[in-house]
Amino acid sequence: MKPRIAITAGDPAGIGPEIAAKAADDWRVRAVCEPVIYDTTPPVAVPIGEVSPQAGRAAFEAIVRAVGDAKRGAVQAVATAPVNKAAFAAAGLGWKGHTDLLAHLCGVSDVAMMFHSPKLRVVLATVHVPLRDVPRLITRDLILTTLHIAAQELPYFGVTGTPRLAVAGLNPHAGEGGLMGHEEIEVIVPAIRDARHDGLNVTGPVPADTVFVRAVRGEFDCVLACYHDQGLTPIKLLAFGTAVNVTLGLPIVRTSPDHGTAFDIAGKGIADPGSMVESILLAAELAKRMEAAR
Amino acid sequence: MKPRIAITAGDPAGIGPEIAAKAADDWRVRAVCEPVIYDTTPPVAVPIGEVSPQAGRAAFEAIVRAVGDAKRGAVQAVATAPVNKAAFAAAGLGWKGHTDLLAHLCGVSDVAMMFHSPKLRVVLATVHVPLRDVPRLITRDLILTTLHIAAQELPYFGVTGTPRLAVAGLNPHAGEGGLMGHEEIEVIVPAIRDARHDGLNVTGPVPADTVFVRAVRGEFDCVLACYHDQGLTPIKLLAFGTAVNVTLGLPIVRTSPDHGTAFDIAGKGIADPGSMVESILLAAELAKRMEAAR
Repeated sequence: MKPRIAITAGDPAGIGPEIAAKAADDWRVRAVCEPVIYDTTPPVAVPIGEVSPQAGRAAFEAIVRAVGDAKRGAVQAVATAPVNKAAFAAAGLGWKGHTDLLAHLCGVSDVAMMFHSPKLRVVLATVHVPLRDVPRLITRDLILTTLHIAAQELPYFGVTGTPRLAVAGLNPHAGEGGLMGHEEIEVIVPAIRDARHDGLNVTGPVPADTVFVRAVRGEFDCVLACYHDQGLTPIKLLAFGTAVNVTLGLPIVRTSPDHGTAFDIAGKGIADPGSMVESILLAAELAKRMEAAR
Repeated sequence: MKPRIAITAGDPAGIGPEIAAKAADDWRVRAVCEPVIYDTTPPVAVPIGEVSPQAGRAAFEAIVRAVGDAKRGAVQAVATAPVNKAAFAAAGLGWKGHTDLLAHLCGVSDVAMMFHSPKLRVVLATVHVPLRDVPRLITRDLILTTLHIAAQELPYFGVTGTPRLAVAGLNPHAGEGGLMGHEEIEVIVPAIRDARHDGLNVTGPVPADTVFVRAVRGEFDCVLACYHDQGLTPIKLLAFGTAVNVTLGLPIVRTSPDHGTAFDIAGKGIADPGSMVESILLAAELAKRMEAAR
């Protein structure tokens, strides 16, 4: 039986409803799952391409409904169209975006953001924080936890055997033995040692400017990036518009496109549903493998 | 007449002498220039694959000779095989590497490191510094100066018209209006305004995870990256082993491979001269265009 995939339509002032509808209608999507759109049309009309509390609230409520349905098994996965952080804030919602909201709705504390593409998978240790805060936020615990979350879920991506993980260095040349930064010696190396002690297969820290090349060549199943641009830059270069964002660590499957609400082109009918389609296809695949593993 | 290109053989304990010899013998190199190897065999034998003061000193002296020859026109460009920072230090030399040594030998203060590949060019605002120091080092002056240096030399790379430059944001989403860091608002935007006032064509700050995609698609001639891994990760992903490092801002042409001394494979005869070959080919091309512009 085809899995039922919830597709939340995202902020109605953005491209979300458009790409959700286009993707639900895509023949590849219909071939592998039963798409169920969670509409986000608010009770009152909202201006297209603008932040509004009504739009933020409507996007939020669709996510709540979809997660509830996923938790009780009425749908097998959730693929979310983009929401707008500012609209969430305007609606008085404390969540910065999907990831923290989903963690709350599922009652879990340790989640991780992964980006998946056919050539490369990346999991992020830190996400939407200023670069100057990253060195302080990269802790031994955070890296260890993120590695564990990734290792636990990679089998659902078709990775067989012990997943081969790599950790990117924070500093140029991964610090070059302390010459260009100490976080590798003080934090990353100990975290990798902990992870190996726990039975994980981890390489690193590998200089960021070579680790993704090695991963693409097949050496690693997933690279842990220390910060947003470190992981997103290579994946978007390799798979722009087709990479999929997956939230790891949840009791449900959740995927989303690699882009935002794109207010600048909302309502014009020209939004590319490519990444949304990939998100739903991956959601269906993950749901099947998770079902089979039960 | 073919340009004469000085090829300094680099640290003799590394792969430098091997790739210099292989590259000088490459038919593509011989077709476009007259390669002149600046030998770095030290007076006493040095252990292969290890840091030694003799090796550092020999590598240094070849650079001094080559730069002297370039300055007086005996060679038209210098392509340098890799040196080892630790060997320089062991030899009591205060230079961190080629770039600062070359600036000193040429008597200039403002130089910039560019990486060139057929698909993408990147110029770095900061290079070999810990990531935690980058936000402090990214100043309005540094960005403006680096943009000027790049704009001035891009015509030698065959760029016609006013070079189209882009500046990558420092923070995720280029700070998203200050939500994720303030350096864009406080430093980068003002620097770009200055540059435009000076007549440069500059776009940005553009989020780092999309600026390289746009450059590869042909929108920009060169991207200014705020830090080492931001620029090197995309270029190595696109052109691993064939990207060329060019020092901008010097009165002479200087190129080098995108890799280091590779002590782990030195002396085995297995080093790939690909990037060294590209370095010499580009040096010859730059020398010709610079000659033609005189």
